Amino acid sequence: MRLRNKPWAKDKLMEYPQYVIQEPESHRGKWDEIFGNDRPLHIEIGTGKGRFILGMAEANPETNYIGIELQPSVIVSALDLLIEAELPNCKLMNVDAAELGKYFANKDVSRVYLNFSDPWPKTRHEKRRLTYKSFLAQYEEILGSGGEVHFKTDNQGLFEYSLTSFSAYGMLLKDVSLDLHNSTMEGNIMTEYEEKFSAKGNRIYRCEAQFRGK
Amino acid sequence: MRLRNKPWAKDKLMEYPQYVIQEPESHRGKWDEIFGNDRPLHIEIGTGKGRFILGMAEANPETNYIGIELQPSVIVSALDLLIEAELPNCKLMNVDAAELGKYFANKDVSRVYLNFSDPWPKTRHEKRRLTYKSFLAQYEEILGSGGEVHFKTDNQGLFEYSLTSFSAYGMLLKDVSLDLHNSTMEGNIMTEYEEKFSAKGNRIYRCEAQFRGK
Repeated sequence: MRLRNKPWAKDKLMEYPQYVIQEPESHRGKWDEIFGNDRPLHIEIGTGKGRFILGMAEANPETNYIGIELQPSVIVSALDLLIEAELPNCKLMNVDAAELGKYFANKDVSRVYLNFSDPWPKTRHEKRRLTYKSFLAQYEEILGSGGEVHFKTDNQGLFEYSLTSFSAYGMLLKDVSLDLHNSTMEGNIMTEYEEKFSAKGNRIYRCEAQFRGK
Repeated sequence: MRLRNKPWAKDKLMEYPQYVIQEPESHRGKWDEIFGNDRPLHIEIGTGKGRFILGMAEANPETNYIGIELQPSVIVSALDLLIEAELPNCKLMNVDAAELGKYFANKDVSRVYLNFSDPWPKTRHEKRRLTYKSFLAQYEEILGSGGEVHFKTDNQGLFEYSLTSFSAYGMLLKDVSLDLHNSTMEGNIMTEYEEKFSAKGNRIYRCEAQFRGK
């Protein structure tokens, strides 16, 4: 994603505490207080400009959503959308996904979305892929058994890698689509990137993987 | 595959007992007697005209191979190739793959190949797919834990189904290729069908799945 530096972004994120979670570690284990209800919480890692997470929140008012994005200059665009949309079940978090356990206790979250994550194609960068086993261990920590990871990408190599990584971790593959936009799936919410990429006729891959009990 | 009836096929299969296993149930648990050595045995289910299994046997003289095919009129073409090639490590079997346990004891076989199996796309025919759980249970019975299924297909729906079926059975996905002919895999032996199909520019899918210990 093209990154335009916005030096004012961090300040703006602090001006909207109703949309951007401040001091997220203080809410660990009690996210129902933030949303005012105990509905299921789904999070997206790498939420970018927020189109997916806002679309999901709008389509599913009975589910709570948090979009997590490290780059202030990017997540501020999601904030703009959220100010416009005024969705009570959608929040944003400007933190590093490498430390999810700091913010979420076991079973705080019931689903993790990964959309068009950086493929890190070089073998020496395998550990940075969001479907590498150390990340899966983090997702398991906050999801608990039965929790699901829903994964979309246009990158063939990352998808092949991720299927074997989910399997090696012992996860159950519940649904696999090798051409999402020519499949029977209903209610797919596209990311900004997905719309551009699929318009060129390229394939989108998708799968759902579930943590099994130990 | 186009089936031309060859009423003489069954007789011809019986004329070459050195290539076509006669009374296969009598060799259960003692296949090393047939091959004159105790090298690993790999079998192909639905071997068709035999190009794959003969190519594998030629490329890997240290492995024993059996190609299994139900249709006499089809497997007789594999026999013609084998008479020509004179490969001591390759045999054929004209039996129904639904009864593998009759012919092979646990750990008689160390790998099962499934190539371009009938996709049986209708949901009501799911049980006929060679990656349906009842078939996987049969493969596990003859392979034992650690045994592998190597699967190739051009059929997207069958591949998606099979990935989830392997996973639901608890198998480990070890390798997944979503475009085999544009991958780094070396030594791929093509089937007749694979050559025709991929020449049109269509994708071949492949994966390896391994039975885990219980």
